[in-house]
Amino acid sequence: MNVLMNVYKIFRNTMLIFIVFSYLHGYEKLYGYEKVVNKEVFTLDSILLASGEELKNIEIGYETYGTLSKNKDNVILICHYYSGTSHAAGRYSVNDKLYGWWDKIIGKGKAVDTDKYFVIASDTLLNINVYDENVITTGPASINPQTDKPYGLTFPIIEFRDIINVQYELLKSLGIKHLIAVMGPSMGGIQTWQWAVSYPNFMDKIIPVIATPKADGWLIGWLNLWSRPILIDPKWNNGNYYFGKKPVNGTALSLQIVSMSANGSGWANSTFGRKWANPIQAPEDSLFNLFAIEKSLIDTSLYSAANIVDANSMLYLNKANALFDISKDFHSMEDALRSIKADILIINSKTDILFTQDEFINYLNIFKEINKPVSHFEINSSFGHLGGLYDIEQAGQSIKVFLDN
Amino acid sequence: MNVLMNVYKIFRNTMLIFIVFSYLHGYEKLYGYEKVVNKEVFTLDSILLASGEELKNIEIGYETYGTLSKNKDNVILICHYYSGTSHAAGRYSVNDKLYGWWDKIIGKGKAVDTDKYFVIASDTLLNINVYDENVITTGPASINPQTDKPYGLTFPIIEFRDIINVQYELLKSLGIKHLIAVMGPSMGGIQTWQWAVSYPNFMDKIIPVIATPKADGWLIGWLNLWSRPILIDPKWNNGNYYFGKKPVNGTALSLQIVSMSANGSGWANSTFGRKWANPIQAPEDSLFNLFAIEKSLIDTSLYSAANIVDANSMLYLNKANALFDISKDFHSMEDALRSIKADILIINSKTDILFTQDEFINYLNIFKEINKPVSHFEINSSFGHLGGLYDIEQAGQSIKVFLDN
Repeated sequence: MNVLMNVYKIFRNTMLIFIVFSYLHGYEKLYGYEKVVNKEVFTLDSILLASGEELKNIEIGYETYGTLSKNKDNVILICHYYSGTSHAAGRYSVNDKLYGWWDKIIGKGKAVDTDKYFVIASDTLLNINVYDENVITTGPASINPQTDKPYGLTFPIIEFRDIINVQYELLKSLGIKHLIAVMGPSMGGIQTWQWAVSYPNFMDKIIPVIATPKADGWLIGWLNLWSRPILIDPKWNNGNYYFGKKPVNGTALSLQIVSMSANGSGWANSTFGRKWANPIQAPEDSLFNLFAIEKSLIDTSLYSAANIVDANSMLYLNKANALFDISKDFHSMEDALRSIKADILIINSKTDILFTQDEFINYLNIFKEINKPVSHFEINSSFGHLGGLYDIEQAGQSIKVFLDN
Repeated sequence: MNVLMNVYKIFRNTMLIFIVFSYLHGYEKLYGYEKVVNKEVFTLDSILLASGEELKNIEIGYETYGTLSKNKDNVILICHYYSGTSHAAGRYSVNDKLYGWWDKIIGKGKAVDTDKYFVIASDTLLNINVYDENVITTGPASINPQTDKPYGLTFPIIEFRDIINVQYELLKSLGIKHLIAVMGPSMGGIQTWQWAVSYPNFMDKIIPVIATPKADGWLIGWLNLWSRPILIDPKWNNGNYYFGKKPVNGTALSLQIVSMSANGSGWANSTFGRKWANPIQAPEDSLFNLFAIEKSLIDTSLYSAANIVDANSMLYLNKANALFDISKDFHSMEDALRSIKADILIINSKTDILFTQDEFINYLNIFKEINKPVSHFEINSSFGHLGGLYDIEQAGQSIKVFLDN
């Protein structure tokens, strides 16, 4: 109960912050892609992976918002972030209090206007929220058709080229031959960059948010920390835990490190500060009397690790992120960026630890050097990296102008 | 051997970076407090702790550089950082290639000029490098005189007030009744702030480097991540591991998180980038084929956890850091800062994740509001928080002017 209360509190605090921010930014109605949304399923018999291996019996979930035009020429693809899902906007029922994660910019009259555009948000392969009832994905927790048992570590290495190839097949199955835009935050931005290089003629525009065109050494260092806790948990058992106890402690710690590294000091200090977890248990009285931020992060991550997230999927997704580099098949990053035909709007968060402001400045300079004009917007957020999610409305006008013109 | 090679490589790379930087900054001779230094030991029968408990049989190590004046009025106290020791300058032998950690600013003619000043650097209680032959400390790995066994979790909670009270007793034992200055980086800066509030008449000047006057919610969140890996390691065994196997995996992961959160993207990208750990093991071929930064951080942290660092000491030191708040016995932070009588030079590192630039701006604004002038210098470093160590020479001139005038 305590855990659930804390999950609820985090949620409530986040909502409160949303509402205050939206008021400050003059939004009359923050939430509300107005229709109830459903999860759809795309299945694919088989795909050839970048590794050369074949993956069979693939399924991924997706959602759509708005109406597909007769010519199927009004489509925007939204790609989700690391711990996210294809639930980018709307609600699952009229009583659902939690809207999709980019609902602030997706809907009637919003930056991504569902009166104009048909928006598709797709789950990725390796989605870590395997036990979320609204997630449909294929990964190491899926059943290997050859053995009728979960793959575990026999699952092949997946790269972002594979992840977007599955999305390409999904679009093909819907008869969509061209996109207005591909966009997404964080790992969604990674997919966006990969789309622009893998299918340069398939879209008019890209909006990679809080993501650069490759994982640099710094990000690889962090991704390693998102895997190590799982690897040192004895219950992980070389990935063979599907019939025994799950490596909850290791997975929870991985999620806790994700939370801190993706967040910002402003969030921690305004939400928690030096508040105690329990008003009658002073932190100075025991090694185990916690401050509020400690208990909150531990409880929420333990809840997710026990009920929602799959450990092996995190390991595989961390690997995919570390492998990400659009310049891989080019002579240089300059050549890779030159190959992009879409117009580009780059959005970063000033306080981002994972994809630093300095890195974005580097890439903006490269675009200048190769004479390729790009649009750019910087979000000023107390949420660090997550500013690209929670404060995305700051970029709303820039996104609207970029998409509509 | 592989581990040792990597430790050596990290060391060599760091040295190389030092040398390049020092050249750029126009230092002719970077290292060289010229004398060989020795570790001295201070022992204390007993002290009353902030918790009300009594701690007995205390010993801490210290080093000195320069010559104590006849009137004992030329003393500067240097406090060490989280994973540091009292080896702030000089070498242990003429063949010793590794100089103390602030050697760049301590020595003949340097910012902290040993021709003028007598410099004392002291180990703290709870020093985590318990098995470093040059560290002398008292903490949970020490022998409890009542049981003749290591304290483990029966060791009392220590606060920074206690840590500096022991240093005060050390100075008293040397007949030193007043200090020119107290200074130190990171946790050394924390001690510096604590000194200024606990003994406001004892020093003329303070130089807290890369540290604010309290641990905020954000820092508390990180400190929790520096403890959790130990707590979930089954070998930690509630702190009773001194006669069995040490919790090496958990301790190593804690140290690895310390390394990343205290460092900066510039360091990771210039030292490692996307280099592979092994040129014939492509990271895309296996979940366990690593990039260079991954292997380097894992190897060095495993080496330290197995040979140098005590897990319980990390837990206690993390707790002490989380409890740090100079305003604790005051009505407000403003009152606490007003109570400081020493002149203040604040030094921060622009790219610091743990003590962010924004937090320093907050404190500089508070000093303005209470009409208390302070000097300030910002280091611009690729090492994040560790800029306060590795790039301290940037502040050399400011420190020299501040101390000498």
